[in-house]
Amino acid sequence: MGVSAADSLLAVMSFNAAYARVIDDDDLERWPDFFTADAQYRITHVENVRDGLAAGMVYADSRDMLIDRISALREANVYERQRYRHVIGMPSVDLLEPGVLRSHAPFLIIRIMHTGEMTVFASGAYHDEFVQDEGSDLKLRKREVVCDSTSTDTLMAIPL
Amino acid sequence: MGVSAADSLLAVMSFNAAYARVIDDDDLERWPDFFTADAQYRITHVENVRDGLAAGMVYADSRDMLIDRISALREANVYERQRYRHVIGMPSVDLLEPGVLRSHAPFLIIRIMHTGEMTVFASGAYHDEFVQDEGSDLKLRKREVVCDSTSTDTLMAIPL
Amino acid sequence: MGVSAADSLLAVMSFNAAYARVIDDDDLERWPDFFTADAQYRITHVENVRDGLAAGMVYADSRDMLIDRISALREANVYERQRYRHVIGMPSVDLLEPGVLRSHAPFLIIRIMHTGEMTVFASGAYHDEFVQDEGSDLKLRKREVVCDSTSTDTLMAIPL
Repeated sequence: MGVSAADSLLAVMSFNAAYARVIDDDDLERWPDFFTADAQYRITHVENVRDGLAAGMVYADSRDMLIDRISALREANVYERQRYRHVIGMPSVDLLEPGVLRSHAPFLIIRIMHTGEMTVFASGAYHDEFVQDEGSDLKLRKREVVCDSTSTDTLMAIPL
Repeated sequence: MGVSAADSLLAVMSFNAAYARVIDDDDLERWPDFFTADAQYRITHVENVRDGLAAGMVYADSRDMLIDRISALREANVYERQRYRHVIGMPSVDLLEPGVLRSHAPFLIIRIMHTGEMTVFASGAYHDEFVQDEGSDLKLRKREVVCDSTSTDTLMAIPL
Repeated sequence: MGVSAADSLLAVMSFNAAYARVIDDDDLERWPDFFTADAQYRITHVENVRDGLAAGMVYADSRDMLIDRISALREANVYERQRYRHVIGMPSVDLLEPGVLRSHAPFLIIRIMHTGEMTVFASGAYHDEFVQDEGSDLKLRKREVVCDSTSTDTLMAIPL
């Protein structure tokens, strides 16, 4: 593996670790910072992807929409009744074009209810495009969250 | 950690990410490509390993047998009724002999039924030996899939 | 990512892989070796942490206490009735002070009962402080195991 490929892999791994932590620590106001201003964010499932359906269960095409979403979540106050734990697997990373990385990473999300009960809430894969900002940090310009199950309950609209 | 050790670790991590993706994306015809022509592949469980039993639940000693297995799966058409999601943990890697890496990596596999129900299908560890081919890519010359549970249903013989 | 940051990340990843393996392989007598002689080890849950309660469910402030704990486990002979499988996610690592790394890593632990039944036993995050010993290997001087669920059964006192 070349130095550059190793560096990209480690950078994406660190990004995903930080991303998961912000959600699981309920530090949601920092979540939109992982995206570019014009980022696309979509939650969908494998059957939609296979059938070429553009419509996802949740869709945003700017960071402002993500900020609004967090505000709505806080007002609805539904999030606090449960917790989540993301475990994100090793990414596959390649160079899509100069300055843009394409990444695929599997994930597993556990939901912990207020009663203490734990269940597998969602599994799937992130299909991502990353760009490097001025400080050479990565930002997502596109994250497609492809859930394995068609019955994952995303009504709550928590970030995945 | 030396440069060489870091490089081996990253190479195995990338390999495992690609391996899991091929299975979970139902791109099974590419699965045998991760093995050498004379590779050994075995699915077994901890009690067999502890008792020194060579017999596994599933066994192959060449890539051709793996190819046959995928053909049989496709004909039986059982695979499509369910999906799997592998999450493979960090490997421990060391040099077994020049050009051969030995690796141990934990795994967790979620099964997603057609109904959307998700369950923990299997957990365990991969006990691996990797060789480098001409292009310096890794290939498995041996993968022993040691399941934690003796009751993991491998009748379906999906690749783990 | 600088060389030093990449190196720290890989070193912590390798440490966590080895740590999990020792527990899951029931090689528990080697578990205390991952800690410094005066290490703090605590198992707690998010509500305790949020409320600033110092008291954890399990607490030790030296390696000798960890050694004692393993002896007690072996005498009680409760551990063998079940197995565990740790999957530890990507760590976030930074330099706390010269020679000391601070790390945060999510984890998921599956319990496999003697009957073969598998359940999600615990999820959470390790909050760690690592120091480098003479051989430049990492040792934990502090590991706080913060479980997501308040109902995780730690009576058995298996190492997490």
